[in-house]
This record gives sequence, structure tokens and C-alpha cells, in this order.
Amino acid sequence: MPRVAILGTGLIGTSIGLRLHSHGRTSDLSVVGWDRNPDHAREARERGAIAETAASVEEAVAGAWLVVLAAPVLALRSLLEDVGAEAAAGRIAANAVVTDTGSTKADVMRWATETLPASVSFVGGHPMAGKTEPGPAAADGALFEGARWVLVPSRSAPGGAVETVTSLINTMGAEAMFMDAEEHDAYVAAVSHLPLAAAVALFTLVRESEAWPEMSMLASSGFLGATRLAQSDTSMAYDIFATNREQVAHWLERYGDEIARFRERLLDDEGGEALFRALGEANLDYARLASGDVGRDAWTESPRDIPSMSAFDLLLGGALSDKMREWRQGQEESRERGSRRRR
Amino acid sequence: MPRVAILGTGLIGTSIGLRLHSHGRTSDLSVVGWDRNPDHAREARERGAIAETAASVEEAVAGAWLVVLAAPVLALRSLLEDVGAEAAAGRIAANAVVTDTGSTKADVMRWATETLPASVSFVGGHPMAGKTEPGPAAADGALFEGARWVLVPSRSAPGGAVETVTSLINTMGAEAMFMDAEEHDAYVAAVSHLPLAAAVALFTLVRESEAWPEMSMLASSGFLGATRLAQSDTSMAYDIFATNREQVAHWLERYGDEIARFRERLLDDEGGEALFRALGEANLDYARLASGDVGRDAWTESPRDIPSMSAFDLLLGGALSDKMREWRQGQEESRERGSRRRR
Repeated sequence: MPRVAILGTGLIGTSIGLRLHSHGRTSDLSVVGWDRNPDHAREARERGAIAETAASVEEAVAGAWLVVLAAPVLALRSLLEDVGAEAAAGRIAANAVVTDTGSTKADVMRWATETLPASVSFVGGHPMAGKTEPGPAAADGALFEGARWVLVPSRSAPGGAVETVTSLINTMGAEAMFMDAEEHDAYVAAVSHLPLAAAVALFTLVRESEAWPEMSMLASSGFLGATRLAQSDTSMAYDIFATNREQVAHWLERYGDEIARFRERLLDDEGGEALFRALGEANLDYARLASGDVGRDAWTESPRDIPSMSAFDLLLGGALSDKMREWRQGQEESRERGSRRRR
Repeated sequence: MPRVAILGTGLIGTSIGLRLHSHGRTSDLSVVGWDRNPDHAREARERGAIAETAASVEEAVAGAWLVVLAAPVLALRSLLEDVGAEAAAGRIAANAVVTDTGSTKADVMRWATETLPASVSFVGGHPMAGKTEPGPAAADGALFEGARWVLVPSRSAPGGAVETVTSLINTMGAEAMFMDAEEHDAYVAAVSHLPLAAAVALFTLVRESEAWPEMSMLASSGFLGATRLAQSDTSMAYDIFATNREQVAHWLERYGDEIARFRERLLDDEGGEALFRALGEANLDYARLASGDVGRDAWTESPRDIPSMSAFDLLLGGALSDKMREWRQGQEESRERGSRRRR
């Protein structure tokens, strides 16, 4: 039977194995797993995600037809070196396909070019799904269902290799999305890595306050939800930042500017309407995203682009004028109070 | 039967009514509700949260023994004026108690002092629970279970009034926590209002990117979770910022500094260890908070305060040295590549 090697049986690798098993693919595929932590490989086997555990990378990839690298990004470099050495020595199947699930793609694609011989093909991958709990215990065969899965074929990858990985992705219940490594890293810097950095910074700032013991008693689902990414696996998070530094730094700078803009609007006595509009637009657009409006069709030629009759004005026109009245009353009242105090 | 008036039958007011009903309190209390939006009052009655709807504030509070104001903060001012006028005219019960559920407390306490006659007592309140879906349809009698509920008695409130509101809070399944209005507003600025502002700013920034149509396709649970507060009810969110401006502005400034600090560490070639530690500490401390470690007992004299043997070093010492090795290899490799390119 064709042999599939999963290197790294944490959350992602074990979820892939579970899905292969639950979707009947293990009747025509032999799935072997390896993990740097032998307990994780054993747990993946006990959960049925892999049929056998390997004691080493060499043993895992021997004769493999498909190799899935499911480890934090910085660990992929030495895994690719090891797989490359086995391939060069002819110990993995001719025309084998290697893919990965790393969170950044530019460095990984370069490492693959540097380390893998021409006898194997590399198709980089990144499933846009996950959770903060790490390890095989948190794995779930349905983790990728309905998710997008970015694929970045190397320049030399033949069509057959791309088809092999696409078929794996489809078995996972995910939808393949092709782009180049630089595009991928720029986009995920904004929608994945910036939110991670923002959550860590927000949690750290409030946690380090002297009043944290009291504040922690008032922190509820809002705080826990907004900072939940701070619980991301430390090694995975570190590797993301180490391999996408410039892009993340760019977005952190823009985010700092956006925070400053929010603050200015808040302190501006005339900023009430702009603040209300910003809150209302974020509310409506979040609801659209959460309901599944994604891609170019959904977000171009939307009512927002017609200045004379925006979705926001249609929906919240009445609420806006009510609120501006309340706000003005409050402003006048404060001014009166201020002048009374000065007298 | 003693009459309870709920003014505002949205998410919070309707949840309070549902809980009174499900916990058998409506056999000895008569609960009447009013909402600016008559559909919301009707829906609250249909769900069993209130026994009758009132056509006006005056009608709702007539003869009331307890008045619960459950509206966005800026709307509380005119509600307090209306309730004050009815109390002054002797149309609500002598020694009636008025409480509220507003997200900020300093302005509300001042308005209560200005508008309510001595014949009624005011005990400000703020349940530390909620969800982003507004309105009576989203209400849930279990919403407050296990939550803390801040109480801010006015200076003139007698012990009996405080007991009445504490008993209401206990019926909700919540735990009363007493503090003054300024303390409350300072603490929630950090754990509630800052996360709200940060989520709106993060969502707005990424949403306004030209690449949003593509990015939206890659946004997954991480982005949706980190920005979920952007879907907060617009009116409630606006009122929070309008009535806690200086405190929120203070935290936004500190957050901007924290974001800048994260960015500097990211770009610093020697910053790897500090970054890894920051990620690891946030991970561990988030887990502690999520598991319910709150208050002074939990967060003072923790292992973090013993520099020579921190919880982090104990737990992640091995991971840290592994990671620093990977990081240094990457750094050396980049330098070699750089010097090869320069040659």
C-alpha cells in the first residue's frame, strides 16, 4: 500500500491522520507517524490517527509516497534536510511528494529548494484553521472542514504532485487556494499574525498592571475572547514571528497608527459622529464576514462604495441622529457644569 | 404583590426577567417591562421575562418597589430624570430602590444624585457578563451565572436598599462585588473598554486594506475571535466611550506603547529570547486566568515573583534553549546568505 509519513503528530498532524482514518483512506494507504516527542506519536497511534509509529525521521519516510511535515516553521528546516538526505539516497519513493502545514511560506519554500533533490516534489501548504490547544489530545478530524488551505507549489512541482496534495486537502474537507509564498505571507501577516501579536500585547499590558489582581476579577468573556490567541502554542507563535518579521512589523506599525487615530477621535469633542460611524461600520462589516461573505465578489461593489446611500446610513440613520442628540445634551451639560464650577 | 419595573428589555433586561421567572420569583413579584422599542417589550413578554408591558416609563414605574434600568449608559440620564419626577410626585413606592446595569458608573452615580429625590435609594450596578448579540431574542436566564456583578451604592443608600439589590444579584446566580465608581471605571477601562476599542481598531485596519477581498478568504477563527467585540451593539459601545473617555484614552496610549515595544523586540536581532519569554509568559498566565485564577490571592506571591525560579523557567526552560538554538542557526544562515549575496 502507498505509504504516507506524517512528521509531527501534534494538533495538525494528528488531525490530518484522524481525517484520513475516518474517511476510509487508511484502507488504501499505510500511515506512519513520527514526532520529536515519542509520547505524542504514541498518543496519535492510540487515537487511530496513524497505524504505526516510527522511531526516527529516516524510518518514517522509508519508501514513503507522500510526506506531510506538520511542525512549527523553524523545525521544518532540519526536517527538510533530513527528508532531502533520505531522498538523495533513494530511500523514499521515486517521485514522492512532500508538503507542509507551516504558518509562513517564503522561508519554507526556499528551504525546500535548498534541501530537496529533483527526485521529489514540494508543494507548500497552510491550513487556515486551528485552535490554541496544542498536541494530539486536541486533534479533531473535522478541524479543517470548510476551511481554506493555501497551496504554494514549488516551481518544479509537476501537475501530478499538485493533484496529490489537492486530493489530500479535499479529503480533509478543506478548499485549496493557490497563491505564491510572498502573497501568502503578506495576507496572513494581517489576518493571522497581527491578531496574535495584538492579543499578546493586550494581555501582557493589562496583566502587568499593578491592579491586575482586582482587574482579573472583572475580566469576563470579552477580555478572554479578545486575548485568547495569547494562549497559542509558544513555539508555533515564536516561529511565525521569526519567519515573517518584516511583514508583521509593518502591520504592527499601522495598527499603532490606527490605535492613535481611535484615541484622537475619542478625545475630540467634535469626534462623536465619526466614532459612532466607525463603531457602526465595524459592527455591520463584522457581521458580513462572520456570515461568510468573503472574497472579491462579496467585498467589491458593495453598498459601502456608493457614498450617497451607504448601508450604514440606511440601517443606522435614525440611531445616529438619536445618538448625536444624546451626545450634544451631555456635552452641553458638561459645559454648564464646568462654567458653574468656575463661577 | 411587590412590583418590579424593568426599563429596557434588551439582552440584559430580558435576561434578568427570564431568571426571575425561572427561579420562581414571579410568584411573589409582579414584573412589568418597558422598552423604547415596543417590539422588544412585546418579545420580552412573549418569552416570559415580564408579566406585562407598559406603554410608558410613567406607567411602568407606578407603585414600583424596585426599578431596574437596563439601557445603554447615555439613555440612563433621561430615564433617571423620568423616574425622579415620578418619585417626587409620590407615584412610585416610598423607599423604592433604583438600580442600573450600565457599563460605566461615575456619570451614572452623578446623574442619580442629581435626579432622584431622597424618597428613593440608588444602588448602581454592572454585571460583568454579556454577549455581542443584542435584543431580547439573545437573552438567556443563565447569562449571569457565575459572573461578578459590581455594585456601587450611592452615599445615601441605606443598608436595606443594598440588601435588596444584592438579593436580586444572587438570584441571577452572580456574585456581588462592591467598589466605588471611579475604581470601577478605571478597572473596566482596561479589561473591557480597551479590548473593545482594540478589536474595532484591528478589524477596521484590516477591513480597510485594499487586499481585504483576498484577506477575508484567509480570515479564520483566530481573526474572528480576536475582533469579535467589533460586533458589540453600536449604541452600547458608543456610550461606553462617551462616558469613560479619559480612562480609555489613557489605556489606548499605553496599548500603543506596548504595540511599539512588541515591534521593536521583533525587529531586534538580539530580541529572540525576550520575544520567546513574552509569548511563553502570556501563554501561561492566560491559562491561569482562563482556569479561574482571579483576585489578590491568586496573583500575588505567585512563582513569577521569585526571580531565581520563575514558573516560566521551570516549565519552558528546555523549550527556550532549543528555540534559541534554532533561532541562532537561522540568524547565522541569513548572515551567510547575506554575505554570499554581497560577494
